Amino acid sequence: MLHPIHGDGLDTALARVDGIELLTPSDDEEVGDALESVAQVLVTFRWDDRFMVPNLRWIQSISTGVDQFPLDELARHRVVLTSALGAHAPAVADHALALFLALVRGIGRAARGAPARRWVPSPAVEVAGLTVVVLGMGEIGRRIAERLGALSTDVIGVRLHPDRSTDGHVVGPDRLLWACRQADAMICALPAGADTEKLIGPAELAALGKGWLVNVGRGSVVDEEALVSALVEKRLLGAALDVTTVEPLPLESPLWDLENVIVTPHMGWVSDRLTPRLAAIVEQNLTAFRGEGPWLNRVV
Amino acid sequence: MLHPIHGDGLDTALARVDGIELLTPSDDEEVGDALESVAQVLVTFRWDDRFMVPNLRWIQSISTGVDQFPLDELARHRVVLTSALGAHAPAVADHALALFLALVRGIGRAARGAPARRWVPSPAVEVAGLTVVVLGMGEIGRRIAERLGALSTDVIGVRLHPDRSTDGHVVGPDRLLWACRQADAMICALPAGADTEKLIGPAELAALGKGWLVNVGRGSVVDEEALVSALVEKRLLGAALDVTTVEPLPLESPLWDLENVIVTPHMGWVSDRLTPRLAAIVEQNLTAFRGEGPWLNRVV
Repeated sequence: MLHPIHGDGLDTALARVDGIELLTPSDDEEVGDALESVAQVLVTFRWDDRFMVPNLRWIQSISTGVDQFPLDELARHRVVLTSALGAHAPAVADHALALFLALVRGIGRAARGAPARRWVPSPAVEVAGLTVVVLGMGEIGRRIAERLGALSTDVIGVRLHPDRSTDGHVVGPDRLLWACRQADAMICALPAGADTEKLIGPAELAALGKGWLVNVGRGSVVDEEALVSALVEKRLLGAALDVTTVEPLPLESPLWDLENVIVTPHMGWVSDRLTPRLAAIVEQNLTAFRGEGPWLNRVV
Repeated sequence: MLHPIHGDGLDTALARVDGIELLTPSDDEEVGDALESVAQVLVTFRWDDRFMVPNLRWIQSISTGVDQFPLDELARHRVVLTSALGAHAPAVADHALALFLALVRGIGRAARGAPARRWVPSPAVEVAGLTVVVLGMGEIGRRIAERLGALSTDVIGVRLHPDRSTDGHVVGPDRLLWACRQADAMICALPAGADTEKLIGPAELAALGKGWLVNVGRGSVVDEEALVSALVEKRLLGAALDVTTVEPLPLESPLWDLENVIVTPHMGWVSDRLTPRLAAIVEQNLTAFRGEGPWLNRVV
């Protein structure tokens, strides 16, 4: 069963797969009803407690992050959860690079000034030789580091297990503050979780200093209050956020009105090439669901 | 003599050069007066007819393009003109890449929607595998092509003398329409001139089709009326312009109000690393001015 909220042809792609009956209910209630009656599998990026019914045996998330799902409860009910890890990585990495370049070249500022006909150059820097810290070196972070390296920046990766990295300059979380001090810019590609919550707080922002912050991971990783202070007081040069603590970003957030901030609406994953990748993950996991192969991206 | 409009430490750098008396007049009139009385050399990116006096022997432009100068008249009066070719190229190439990525990732649209608190994802594509035409393969165009290649796009360069190119896929102007038909995006890095005027017109925009146009060369290269039509009618997906036919872009230009357009205020050249490069060009040309070496970037 495919949750209705996403089009993009995934329904068409799945309809072609042998041996499944594809339901495409039109809202959360219909999803709940379908799970109550016949469906055992849910393909979705949304979660609603109504979906937790005895029939449910497997959830294929079409998002990379799975923080929206009740992981412990799924485990208790022996519901398998698989993610779309990797499917969005090229698009998110492109988005991160685009946000980084837009920041350092003053493009967000120019774009927001267009309705007022503002023609005022802002400071801008050259990219080669900048030091950029990539926080989180998973599927997305590694691709961000690759792109940055291709543009001759000095990349420092920060990851939980630096010893597992074979590429480039990678350090552990114990050296996060040190990395912030080296950085002209930091790009965060970390998932949500207890161990990443507000990892970027006042101390890290102070260590980053007159630099730029890009976040394409999860909003919870950055202490948003500390970020706003640093931006308002111009201790930080600018921030570009594809993810925020609350999404959509609340109307009253000061981030909307800051000239040195770019907000994009959690769209890093948007791509013209997503459907075949998602369909391939679902197909492989259908085989696993039938007991005929290994799971891909199994989380629970 | 240094024209007053540019700070950025070039005055300080030149003040350190032996054997010159540096004047830094505060407006065009004072520049004219100084040239009437003592100065023989003008370092500037601006031209005013008052500057054409018998004393004037050499103009060092601090811009790459020299279309603002009266080339024929300078030649007639045996005034040497040298450009800053190369000094701005890394920054302009970074800016072009930033504009291109901002277009394909919907970042301009998001930034201009921020004051209205708009949280609506727009279509966005992945960069790898896109076909990008770089129009003009000089110092700037070549660097743009390098950066695009590093991001795994397919680059087609268009230049006047393709046979002089050793790098990549480069074609001549006779294949411009063909290149437009291949392209997902076109990035223009051409100077102004009779041979480039409105080179991108209705036929080229039609051949480009559902693609993107970036211009960091000169506004005159693009037929702006045809561009506006293509954008309004959504035959073209979007445009990002650092240069326009008239600068600053007139208040009444429809380009300011189009959602699928990014305008930056002719700031591609802005860089944190410009001063030493400009100073080095001026120093070498001072040697040439004294008859002790070859001119660098001599135009007239």
